Amino acid sequence: MRHLLRSGLQGLPALLLLAAVAGAATNAVNPAPPPKPSVSFAEILKTSKPEEWRRPDPANTLYMDLGSGRVVIELAPQFTPLHAANIRTLAHGNYFDGLTIYRVQDNYVTQWGDADGKRPLPIASKLAPEYTLSPIGAINFTKLPDGDVYAPEAGFVDGFPAARDPATKTAWLVHCYGMVGAGRDLDDETGPGAELYAVNGSPTRHMDRNLALIGRVLQGMNLLSSLPRGTGDGLGMYEQVDERVPILEVRLAADLPEAERLKLEVMRTDSPSFRAIIEWRRNRHDDFYKVPAGHVDVCNIPVPVRTVP
Amino acid sequence: MRHLLRSGLQGLPALLLLAAVAGAATNAVNPAPPPKPSVSFAEILKTSKPEEWRRPDPANTLYMDLGSGRVVIELAPQFTPLHAANIRTLAHGNYFDGLTIYRVQDNYVTQWGDADGKRPLPIASKLAPEYTLSPIGAINFTKLPDGDVYAPEAGFVDGFPAARDPATKTAWLVHCYGMVGAGRDLDDETGPGAELYAVNGSPTRHMDRNLALIGRVLQGMNLLSSLPRGTGDGLGMYEQVDERVPILEVRLAADLPEAERLKLEVMRTDSPSFRAIIEWRRNRHDDFYKVPAGHVDVCNIPVPVRTVP
Repeated sequence: MRHLLRSGLQGLPALLLLAAVAGAATNAVNPAPPPKPSVSFAEILKTSKPEEWRRPDPANTLYMDLGSGRVVIELAPQFTPLHAANIRTLAHGNYFDGLTIYRVQDNYVTQWGDADGKRPLPIASKLAPEYTLSPIGAINFTKLPDGDVYAPEAGFVDGFPAARDPATKTAWLVHCYGMVGAGRDLDDETGPGAELYAVNGSPTRHMDRNLALIGRVLQGMNLLSSLPRGTGDGLGMYEQVDERVPILEVRLAADLPEAERLKLEVMRTDSPSFRAIIEWRRNRHDDFYKVPAGHVDVCNIPVPVRTVP
Repeated sequence: MRHLLRSGLQGLPALLLLAAVAGAATNAVNPAPPPKPSVSFAEILKTSKPEEWRRPDPANTLYMDLGSGRVVIELAPQFTPLHAANIRTLAHGNYFDGLTIYRVQDNYVTQWGDADGKRPLPIASKLAPEYTLSPIGAINFTKLPDGDVYAPEAGFVDGFPAARDPATKTAWLVHCYGMVGAGRDLDDETGPGAELYAVNGSPTRHMDRNLALIGRVLQGMNLLSSLPRGTGDGLGMYEQVDERVPILEVRLAADLPEAERLKLEVMRTDSPSFRAIIEWRRNRHDDFYKVPAGHVDVCNIPVPVRTVP
C-alpha cells in the first residue's frame, strides 16, 4: 500500500477547469453550458502561448551557488529599487562570496550574509526602508477573487505575490514561502541588502510592510529549506562556525557571458494561462479532490518557472 | 553587521499588548485608556496559570523515533476518532517500526509508511473518510477575529487549528504547517492511517475536507522539515531505497512506563493566555515592528508546548 497524496502540481491526469476560467458568464435562466473538457495543470502549461512567459531580466537575477547547487533569485526593483541597486553592487563586487548561511529557524527563515560582521561593506549601511510602494504607479496588479486575511486586496505583480490597499493607494510584496527579504536591526534603515533571508515555512505575513522584500527564489528553494535547523538563541542560529553553510559565490546573471546564463522563463501573472492556474487552485475537480476549496490564498498559488532550450 | 530579523517567538524584550487583550471595551467618546505595560511573549508564558496548560493524553500521543531524534505527535480523536483508533492499534502492534520516510516534497509534505507495500496491515484497509465533523457536538471553538480565506470561521479546538461553518454546522481541522494527515489513494476510504504525512511548508488549505487530519506535531517538526527533498515522480519521492529515512520505532506514550513519557504540556487554546498570544500575533508593538499587522491567520499562531519538571 502506498498512498500517494498527489501533489498540487503533478500527477493529476484529469482536472476540470470551471467554465468561468474561459470567461463564460453564467446565466440564471438558461442552463449552464456543459463543463469544458478536463484540463490538467500540465495541459495549462502545454497550451500556454510563448507570449505568456517572460525571461527574467539578467540585471535583476542572482545566482547564489552553494556546495549543494544553485539558488536563483529574481529581484523586484518595481518595489524595492534602492535595495536592488545595492544588491547588484554587492554581487558585482563579489561581496557575498565566501560568506555563509548562518541561521535556519524552523518554519520561519533561512538567513545569510556576514555572520561575523568583519567584511567591509561597499555600500552605505543605511538605506530608506522600501516596505510599501506609494504611489503605486504603473504596476500591473492581478487581483485574486477571494480576499485576504491581512490586506484589503491580494494578488500578483510581475510574478511576485503582493497586496494592495485602494484606500491609501499603496501596494507591497508579501511574505510567502520562498520570498526573499533584507534583514535589519531595530532601526528600519539598517537593512541595506547585505543580509538576506528567505521564508522557509508558513507565510510570515506579520512581517509584511515591516521589512523590505527584495525578490523571490525562482529555483533551488529546496536547498535553503532542507538545511539543518540551528539551535542558537532560540533564533535558529548555527552555534558552531563549522555548521555554517558556505556561499561559494553570488553572481548577477548579467555579469556572466550569455552562454552561461540559465534559460529560465516565468509565467506572466497577468496572462490568461495564469488566470487558469488561479482557478485550478481554487477549484480542483479531478478524481482526488472531493470538495473543491472554492477559494485560494495568495501564498498557495505556484507561479510556474520553466527552463527553455 | 548581523541583522537578526527577530523571531516571532523569541528575543523581543518589549511587546505591548493592546488594551483589548485584557477585554477592555473601547469607547468612541472617551479617550482610549493608556496602553498596558509592555508584555513579551515570554512574559505571557511566564505569567500563565497552571490551569491554562494541559498534559496531552498519553493514549493519544505518539513518539516517532528517527535516527536524528524524536517526533511527538498528538492525535485528534475529537475530529478523527476512527483514525485515532487505527493508529493506536498500529503503534501498539509496532507496525511502523522499520518502515521509512519515503517522500519529502518541498513546500508540501513529508510522508511515511510502507513504501513497498509489503507489510501486512493489521487493520482494515478501508475506513470512513473523517474529513468533516458533523454534527459538531461539544467542541470548544476559539474563534479568531479576522476571518479566513477558505472558511466562514477559523480558530482553535483543543490546540488544533480548525475551521467551522455555522450554516452547515460542520467543523474540520485545517492544513497548517506541522499538521499530520492520512495519505490515501483516489478512493476516499483508502486512508486508514497507515500512511501519514506532515505539512512542511505553506499551509495546503486546498486539502482541507479532502483528507483526514489526524493530529499535529508537538515537537520535532524540524526533523521532518529539514530532510533532503526527493526527486521522484515530481512528487518528492526518494528514488533510491537508501535515501529513505528509517523509522526506528513508533510508540504510544501510554504503552511506555510513566517514567519514560515526556513531560510535555500544551497551552489551552481557550485560555486567557492563549487569547493574549493571539492578540500579540495580531499586533506587534515592540521596537522591531513598525506597522502592526492588525490581523492574523489561523496558520500563523504558535500553540505553545513546554516541558515541565
